[in-house]
Amino acid sequence: MPEFPPVDEQMAILMRGVEFGDDQTRTNMEAELRLRIEESRESGRPMRVYCGFDPTSSDLHLGHTVPLRKLRQFQELGHTVIFLIGTFTGTIGDPSDKESARTQQSLEEAMDNARGFTQQAHRVLDREKTVIDYNHRWLGELDFGGVIRLASHFTVQQFLARDNFSNRHAKGEPIWLHEFFYALMQGYDAIMLDTDVQIGGTDQLFNLMAGRTLMSARGMRPQVVLTFPILVGTDGHMRMSKSTGNHIGIDEAPGVIFTKVVNLPDHTFQNFSELVTRWSQEEIDGMVAQMDSGELEPQAAKRALAKEIVSIFHGEKRAEQAAVDAVRMHEGAAPSDAPQFRLSEEMNLLELMSASGLVRSKGEARRLIQQGGVRLNGEAVSDGVLTLVEPNGGESILQVGKKRFLRVVSTE
Amino acid sequence: MPEFPPVDEQMAILMRGVEFGDDQTRTNMEAELRLRIEESRESGRPMRVYCGFDPTSSDLHLGHTVPLRKLRQFQELGHTVIFLIGTFTGTIGDPSDKESARTQQSLEEAMDNARGFTQQAHRVLDREKTVIDYNHRWLGELDFGGVIRLASHFTVQQFLARDNFSNRHAKGEPIWLHEFFYALMQGYDAIMLDTDVQIGGTDQLFNLMAGRTLMSARGMRPQVVLTFPILVGTDGHMRMSKSTGNHIGIDEAPGVIFTKVVNLPDHTFQNFSELVTRWSQEEIDGMVAQMDSGELEPQAAKRALAKEIVSIFHGEKRAEQAAVDAVRMHEGAAPSDAPQFRLSEEMNLLELMSASGLVRSKGEARRLIQQGGVRLNGEAVSDGVLTLVEPNGGESILQVGKKRFLRVVSTE
Repeated sequence: MPEFPPVDEQMAILMRGVEFGDDQTRTNMEAELRLRIEESRESGRPMRVYCGFDPTSSDLHLGHTVPLRKLRQFQELGHTVIFLIGTFTGTIGDPSDKESARTQQSLEEAMDNARGFTQQAHRVLDREKTVIDYNHRWLGELDFGGVIRLASHFTVQQFLARDNFSNRHAKGEPIWLHEFFYALMQGYDAIMLDTDVQIGGTDQLFNLMAGRTLMSARGMRPQVVLTFPILVGTDGHMRMSKSTGNHIGIDEAPGVIFTKVVNLPDHTFQNFSELVTRWSQEEIDGMVAQMDSGELEPQAAKRALAKEIVSIFHGEKRAEQAAVDAVRMHEGAAPSDAPQFRLSEEMNLLELMSASGLVRSKGEARRLIQQGGVRLNGEAVSDGVLTLVEPNGGESILQVGKKRFLRVVSTE
Repeated sequence: MPEFPPVDEQMAILMRGVEFGDDQTRTNMEAELRLRIEESRESGRPMRVYCGFDPTSSDLHLGHTVPLRKLRQFQELGHTVIFLIGTFTGTIGDPSDKESARTQQSLEEAMDNARGFTQQAHRVLDREKTVIDYNHRWLGELDFGGVIRLASHFTVQQFLARDNFSNRHAKGEPIWLHEFFYALMQGYDAIMLDTDVQIGGTDQLFNLMAGRTLMSARGMRPQVVLTFPILVGTDGHMRMSKSTGNHIGIDEAPGVIFTKVVNLPDHTFQNFSELVTRWSQEEIDGMVAQMDSGELEPQAAKRALAKEIVSIFHGEKRAEQAAVDAVRMHEGAAPSDAPQFRLSEEMNLLELMSASGLVRSKGEARRLIQQGGVRLNGEAVSDGVLTLVEPNGGESILQVGKKRFLRVVSTE
C-alpha cells in the first residue's frame, strides 16, 4: 500500500496559491480537500486530479505552467494526475478568458496541436506518472439526448450572470448559443474522468463548478475544485494567451524569453514571481519591498526574473548565456542566438532585409536606411538602394534598430 | 405529369387565415410562396409541406385541427403533406406556448401517444396521401458536434428577445438552457425533411424562422413559413392546451364537446368560428354583427357553433342528438350520454358519489347534500349519511347541481 505524506503537509503544499472569489468557497473546498486526503491516506488510494488544456496552438506558454506546476505537486505527493487535452472542447473554444467568441477549430487541428502540447508539458510534469487523455473520446460520442440532459441542470440566467457574458450582454455584443456549451463539456469531462479534484484558473470557477453540479445530479460525489490566479501577458493587463499575442512560449529561444521578461511592465514582477518561479514567498516579498523602497532597480529585478524563468525551461547554463547576450545586445553586439541568413549569390540589401524577415517590406527597409537605423558590421548604411552584399565566405552582422540582428553567412 | 390548379386559385386558398406580426414578413412569404407554386406547376413537382405535432398527450384537440385543416388544403391542391410527430422534440417540450418549463417526456411515452395522435389526425387529413414521420429518427442520431454546429448560428440575445423568454427573464423566473434547443430541433427537422413550406401557429414564428436560418447556412433554399392564429382554450384567454386543461378533445363524447363549446366565453365566438368551423367568412361576419346589434343571443350563436363543431368530428346525426341532450340536461333530465355506474351491492350514497367520480370526496358529497344540491330520481336528498342506494334491477338517476348526472344501474 503506498504511503502518502501527512495530511497537514499535503494541505500546506496543495493549498498554496489557491485563490477564490469568496471566503465561503475557500472554506468549503479546503474542508473537502482535507477529507479526501484523509480518505486517500486511509485507503491507500491516490486521488485523481485533472486539469484540461485546449490545444488552440501547438505551444504551451508560461500561463499553462501555473496549473502544470500544481499538478506536479500532486504527482510528487503520490496522486494520479490526468493531463486532459481538450481535443473536443478546443473545437468550440472556451469563452471564459475573453470577451468575444473564438473561431471554431477542427478535430484534426486540435490533434496536431496536442502532440506539441504533450511534449512540452513533460518539461513540468513527471512523464512516467502522467495520464494523458483526450476529451473527444466521450464528448464526440454524446448524442443530442445526452446534451439535453446536461443542459437541463443549468439556467440561462446562471450563464448570463458570469462576468464575461454579462459584460458582453451589457455592451449588446452577440453571445453565440454554443458558447454556453463549454461549461457543460467541462462538467461532463469531470464525470467521465471520475475525478476527486479539478484545478484551473480563477476565471474557470464557473466551468469547474458545473462539474460539481453535474456529478451531484448523477448521484456522484462532487469533485473538489481549486482555482489559481491568472498569469498576465506581456502587455501587463490581459490574461496571457497565444490568440492575444501577449504570450511567452516555453519553447521559445532562451534569448527571446529573456528579452520578453525584461521588457515586462514593472508592476507584473510580483504576479510572475509568485506564479512562475521557484522562489519562496519570503524571497519574493523581500525583492518587492526593496523595489518599493528604491533599493532594487526594477530593471535588475526583472533581469533576475528573466534568468530564473529561462533557467526553469532551458537550464542554468543557457540562462547565463541569455543574460550575457542581453548585455551584448544592449551594447550593439549580436546575441549568440540571432537568426542566420545563408547567402549564395549577390543580393540587393533591400531584398535581403525583406527576404530574411528582418523587415516587413522593401519599403520599410528603405525608410529605415534613410533614417540611419540600419548598420552593417557596426557601420551605419546610408545608400540603401545601391548597396550590395557580396558573398565573402565569412559572416556579416546586419542590425536594425537596437534589438534586431541578422547574421548573414556566405555559403561559398 | 400531375396538373395543379392555377397559381391565383392556390394562393387564395393557402393564404386564407395566414397571420404575421408584421407586414414585411407577410409580403416576403407571399412572394416566395407564389414563386414556389409557379415552379411546382412548371415542373409538375408537388411542394413538400409539413407541420410538427408534439405528442404530449394521446389526444388531439381543436387547437391541433387549425393547422391540420390547412394541411388538408395543401393535399387537396395536390401537394405532399408530412404529418411530423415530435417524438424527439416532445421529450423536451416546446417552451413557445407557455410561460414555464415543461416536464421532459420519455421516447416511449411519446411513441405511445403518437399512435392515438395519428389515428385522430386522419379525421382531418387524407389518410391515403399523408406522409407520417417521426423526428427522433434524425434528432436522436445527432451528435454533440452536430448540436454545436446548429447552435452556432444563433445568439442568446435572439432567444431572449422572444416574448415568452423575455417575460420570464423580466420576472426573474428560471429559463433552462435546454429550452433554447427546441428551435434548433425544429430547424433541423426542416433540413432533414427538405421542405418547401412549414406551417404553424403565430407563436411558432421564431421556431419556423430558425429553419430558414439553418437551411440558408447549409446552402439550401430557405423554406416558406406560414403562421396561423392561435385557438384559445375554454378559459377564453390562454392557448388551448391539454397541459393547461382548457382543451376540447376531438375524441371527446359529442355531449362533452357540445357543452364545452356552449360554455365558452362569448368573446371567443369569432376566434372559434374562423379557426374551427367550415363556415364562410361572410357567414361568420354576419353572425358577429347580429350578436353586436343584439339580434342574435350569444347563447344561440354558441349552440350553433357547438353543433357545427360536433358535426365536423362526429357527423350530423350525433350533433343533432347532442343539441337535444343539452336542452334536456338544462331541464333536469339526464342526457343520453351521461356516465353509468354499475352497482352490485348496497352502497352508502356518500361512497357511491365519491367512487363514481361524481364528486371528488365524501366530504364534498356531504356538503352538497346539506346544501340541497343532490337529487335522486328528481327528488332532493336531505339525509346524506343514512341514505342507502339499493340495487333494484333498474336505473336510478343521480344528479348533482344542474349539469352532473350519473345513471346508477343494478347488475342483478
